[in-house]
Amino acid sequence: MKDYNLYFKEERERVNRCLDRLLPPAVEHNRIAEVMRYSVETGGKRLRPLLTLATARCLGNSDESALEVACAIELIHTYSLIHDDLPAMDDSDLRRGKPTSHCVYGEALAILAGDALLTLAFEVLARYGRREGREKIGLQISAELAAAAGASGLIAGQVLDLAGEGLSLREEEVEEMYRLKTGTLLLAAVRCGALIADASPAELKTLEGFANSLGPAFQIADDLLDCMGTEAETGKRPGSDQARGKSTYPAVMGEKMARRRVGHLYREAMRHLDALGRPCCLLRLLAHQLVYRTR
Amino acid sequence: MKDYNLYFKEERERVNRCLDRLLPPAVEHNRIAEVMRYSVETGGKRLRPLLTLATARCLGNSDESALEVACAIELIHTYSLIHDDLPAMDDSDLRRGKPTSHCVYGEALAILAGDALLTLAFEVLARYGRREGREKIGLQISAELAAAAGASGLIAGQVLDLAGEGLSLREEEVEEMYRLKTGTLLLAAVRCGALIADASPAELKTLEGFANSLGPAFQIADDLLDCMGTEAETGKRPGSDQARGKSTYPAVMGEKMARRRVGHLYREAMRHLDALGRPCCLLRLLAHQLVYRTR
Repeated sequence: MKDYNLYFKEERERVNRCLDRLLPPAVEHNRIAEVMRYSVETGGKRLRPLLTLATARCLGNSDESALEVACAIELIHTYSLIHDDLPAMDDSDLRRGKPTSHCVYGEALAILAGDALLTLAFEVLARYGRREGREKIGLQISAELAAAAGASGLIAGQVLDLAGEGLSLREEEVEEMYRLKTGTLLLAAVRCGALIADASPAELKTLEGFANSLGPAFQIADDLLDCMGTEAETGKRPGSDQARGKSTYPAVMGEKMARRRVGHLYREAMRHLDALGRPCCLLRLLAHQLVYRTR
Repeated sequence: MKDYNLYFKEERERVNRCLDRLLPPAVEHNRIAEVMRYSVETGGKRLRPLLTLATARCLGNSDESALEVACAIELIHTYSLIHDDLPAMDDSDLRRGKPTSHCVYGEALAILAGDALLTLAFEVLARYGRREGREKIGLQISAELAAAAGASGLIAGQVLDLAGEGLSLREEEVEEMYRLKTGTLLLAAVRCGALIADASPAELKTLEGFANSLGPAFQIADDLLDCMGTEAETGKRPGSDQARGKSTYPAVMGEKMARRRVGHLYREAMRHLDALGRPCCLLRLLAHQLVYRTR
């Protein structure tokens, strides 16, 4: 287990070095580069890129170019966090234990830095696709990530989240919101890794099943941390969801049922991996970390 | 001339029908689709898509698929207007003669609708590239538009614009801001039309020269309208730039010098078209309309 922790640490550092290469250089008087870098560099577990890389590797691919696609997903994730934290949205002042971008640089630059990260993600994906022989897969990935991040994915989730503030949502409504807010991008991260590794249609389908169980498990675990964890553990104000009147799974179903649901979804995810007929230890361990992390 | 006006009217309607197809359907309870549609459908001269289509046609291409690329550019333009109008940015309440998106739907939905339009643009471009034989050109267009819209293009322009509020910028500084805020996307619109039409490297270079003269001419003409035009003519509050302490070309150089500069740039743009060795009447007329419009 210790070796695997070291492995993930090194993968995370590889992701961070790649992000550093992709971001505009931190030169004096380039304010937007500064805000983009602040937002990306502030902690971050890099779960989505690790998921892409572990999926590709589990199918026998350790292509260096998968790294850029993985980082493009992290750029999309970071943009969505910056915009979600804005005063007009969740109005969060703390993220990953540090002041949020708009608290440090003001709203205008925070909005623009989010826009710039989203745009950069698609530039990175287009550049990936322009490599010899990667055209078709690059375009497919670009189309899928745009759909996952767009008005019927990530953004629809945030709209539901905001609309649900102060209302008591039912269990299914909370799960639908989770599917959109977290699930679509996690699913896309897994699919991208599989596509890069030339997965068969059957493998793709199995890995989709895995991602679709992992997504809500991860989000419920995150909510449990938010309402139970301390600020030092979560890097966010504890109970901030509750304070905003958000319907989270633990709030709707109670802590005990929420933990039970996490366990159920996690086992379901593992059964999908069993069906894959490959060891995929990295993917198993990563899923375990995602779901049973304490910070 | 009358026939050409009819021609542009019909092209504009073709663009509007295509945008309607690309946007998510306006069904009940889909708030984000509603905001996206409101923002796109509120007037708009569709100059950028018309520029792409006219450039392609001037090189002998009237491919239906150019239309989608042209509309993707309009989606990017509309997203940038929504975000520029936000209270944290230019704080504009009127655009194209109608209340701005955030005034009608609130800040949160306006920010998200902008995000969704930007994301949709890249989905449309990826789908364009997935057509047989369009892979390379689709990826190139996607990469170029992302660069034009990103942190060293459009967004850099908006950062400069905000940073310059209340300061007296020099002529070169204003022109640099114009180049980034307006020029990069107009240049990209022309380049995309040329790329779709398989322009030769020499033709591309000449058309770039045309776009680089047209861009500032268009922006200075726009500023002249803003400070001289009435609300009915511009669809914006008259003198809104001045009220925000923005350094525009007419404010820095005076109206007379500004008009002279527009004329100079316009003639320069026409000389580039002369060098192309093709009639390109549509491009000439469109450039004239852009620069000498009264609303």
